Amino acid sequence: MNNGKFNIAVAQSGGPTAAINSSLAGVFKAASEYDCIENIYGSINGIEGMINDELIDMKAMLTSEHEIELLRKTPSTILGSCRYKLPARDRDENVYIKIINTMEEHNIKAFFYIGGNDSMDTVMKLDAYCRAVGKDIKIMGIPKTIDNDLPVTDHTPGFGSAAKYVATTLQEIIRDSRVYSVQSITIVEIMGREAGWLAASTCVLRANGEPAPHLIYLPEADFTIEKYLDDVAEAMKKYRAVLIAVSEGIKPDKLPSEFGSELTDAFGHKYLSGIGKYLEKITAAHFGCKVRSIELNVMQRCGSHIASLTDLDEASQIGEEAVRSAMNGESGRMMIFQRISNAPYHVAIKSVPVEECANKEKMFPSEWINNEGNNVTTDALNYFLPLIQGESVVEYRNGIPVHFRINQ
Amino acid sequence: MNNGKFNIAVAQSGGPTAAINSSLAGVFKAASEYDCIENIYGSINGIEGMINDELIDMKAMLTSEHEIELLRKTPSTILGSCRYKLPARDRDENVYIKIINTMEEHNIKAFFYIGGNDSMDTVMKLDAYCRAVGKDIKIMGIPKTIDNDLPVTDHTPGFGSAAKYVATTLQEIIRDSRVYSVQSITIVEIMGREAGWLAASTCVLRANGEPAPHLIYLPEADFTIEKYLDDVAEAMKKYRAVLIAVSEGIKPDKLPSEFGSELTDAFGHKYLSGIGKYLEKITAAHFGCKVRSIELNVMQRCGSHIASLTDLDEASQIGEEAVRSAMNGESGRMMIFQRISNAPYHVAIKSVPVEECANKEKMFPSEWINNEGNNVTTDALNYFLPLIQGESVVEYRNGIPVHFRINQ
Repeated sequence: MNNGKFNIAVAQSGGPTAAINSSLAGVFKAASEYDCIENIYGSINGIEGMINDELIDMKAMLTSEHEIELLRKTPSTILGSCRYKLPARDRDENVYIKIINTMEEHNIKAFFYIGGNDSMDTVMKLDAYCRAVGKDIKIMGIPKTIDNDLPVTDHTPGFGSAAKYVATTLQEIIRDSRVYSVQSITIVEIMGREAGWLAASTCVLRANGEPAPHLIYLPEADFTIEKYLDDVAEAMKKYRAVLIAVSEGIKPDKLPSEFGSELTDAFGHKYLSGIGKYLEKITAAHFGCKVRSIELNVMQRCGSHIASLTDLDEASQIGEEAVRSAMNGESGRMMIFQRISNAPYHVAIKSVPVEECANKEKMFPSEWINNEGNNVTTDALNYFLPLIQGESVVEYRNGIPVHFRINQ
Repeated sequence: MNNGKFNIAVAQSGGPTAAINSSLAGVFKAASEYDCIENIYGSINGIEGMINDELIDMKAMLTSEHEIELLRKTPSTILGSCRYKLPARDRDENVYIKIINTMEEHNIKAFFYIGGNDSMDTVMKLDAYCRAVGKDIKIMGIPKTIDNDLPVTDHTPGFGSAAKYVATTLQEIIRDSRVYSVQSITIVEIMGREAGWLAASTCVLRANGEPAPHLIYLPEADFTIEKYLDDVAEAMKKYRAVLIAVSEGIKPDKLPSEFGSELTDAFGHKYLSGIGKYLEKITAAHFGCKVRSIELNVMQRCGSHIASLTDLDEASQIGEEAVRSAMNGESGRMMIFQRISNAPYHVAIKSVPVEECANKEKMFPSEWINNEGNNVTTDALNYFLPLIQGESVVEYRNGIPVHFRINQ
């Protein structure tokens, strides 16, 4: 890289997680260690901040170790986010010119984008553009998503904390569901647009001898209403309070049109919602017992008070490594975790060409789904368990966790 | 009381909380200290266990200090619960006879009922019956409800933990709601059948400088759709991401029949649900911006991983005091907290005739609601803050909180 002093920029994109600020803190810490890096800019609302020249001076924002620590434990994206899809260069080069202008105006020589598969599309296009027009600016991707659906990397920062929140909450719902003497069925709808990783992760409760959730349904397995009702009937023979974890992305064979919303986001993904309510209606009509559906909603992606320490630490580390990789001359690459071993749990952090990840989704492996298509295997349990280990020390003020804030 | 050895029984009733097992542990610990008390029976599924002679030997269930500690931190009712309403004696004395039979068969000389206003109806009737038929059996009520709507007592065990969960979760939802650059409105529906205490408690975030929730709506204030939409429009001028806390029990002037469910429980209470979704539809139609509604559902009443230490400790203490009061000859009384001071926070535990509490509800004070009817005052904040202080040390195994369990 440049021998003189220069600046870098970092941005956050896509849906919030409990760990995305930890990756931001990692980028900040590693970049602060380089004498040649003068300013560390935060781009407001993802790539939009680079287009519109809306930057924040992160060294002015984070003035102490304590603030960095608070940032690490604050959920959601402190710099804001976006769902902006970079147009193809040959369709609208203007946007690229604006981004490069912002970079040149602020002497930015490296840009770090923390996000999911859609954000990696931006990294890929921006890197290709820089190469094409001969700009020596490094563009690096840092993975982030509670969906855990990025290819190549063993798992994604943010997923472990979401899984820990979901498991903890599900266990409390299980306690709640067992108080009355009557038969009941509780359906918990869990995020996962296309891939069922987060719903699958509820199997971790088994590690402590908890038989629930008794049924786990994922988008990766066929789902017919007939088989589902048979499964539930079977579970009701064994358990008074049946608990079902269902991924929002399952595709039942019969789905009334009201549940098939045609709304799509900028990347063409359908907004999903309501599968839990739909199953609740069908289940109650069929069995005539007490049936309740619960949506974990945005809480599952921002539950930092019960974050996984493993996740928060890894999120920082992968952010730090991204800076070191760029300083070593890398560009157009996404950082990944490579799992070395389960026990003891050990991962290596590497990088791969971003093309291998952008716009691609990693599904939950079919070999980890049981034959019945209604639960997951012990291999899945062994994969998930290390990711939810450890608890971060939450700072409380007035009985409430302290969040790092820069605006209202 | 009897000079020889005798036994006692305890039961849990109504909706689960994060602290009701802590009160049970308190009863157990205090009773264990009396040499004259031989067995401590847990009645399965509230008063139903006394009617049907379904008792569990709690000394066999809790065999170590560690198990008692785990029980204190386990949400929901370990002994199960019920919504059974004791019939008037002159309508069906048979049920009373069954209860007395169970008590005499097991030499039970004191019965402790942990529950809300409905459960205190049972305490009142059972005590009156014992007095009428000349049975020297002490019947004591121990308050419990996340609704905080029991009269006379300053607050109820379970409420502080629910308030801490709601505040913590709401703060995370606030972070989540602020990531995008577009205007948005988030409506969070909070439990409270008739009284708005829990929704009102969200004002605690103000203590840390957080302006949200920007609007708080309670059943105790008039609610017209017109004023509501004006309030939201006003808030949108100041905040890009407006956050609204709404009690499930608010009664809008215009409510389509689909939201007015006629289902009622054994005590004649309507099942409420869906006010958040209803407001979401109205708000989205009116403003045309991004509107989301979130239901905190049963999670708010069983979130023991973020329980208030003050609440858990007080819940144990009031359980212990109930035993001492019964041993001092009291009966037909409910234990209460009397607040001595806010700073330092100090409460006394006393008892009052259960008639003062049974079947009565304590509404949120109108003088703590602002003139606009869309927020609460600083007096309310000062009342709530001490109740959410402190965090219990959660024991984790495999990254998941350990719950005390006796059955699946």
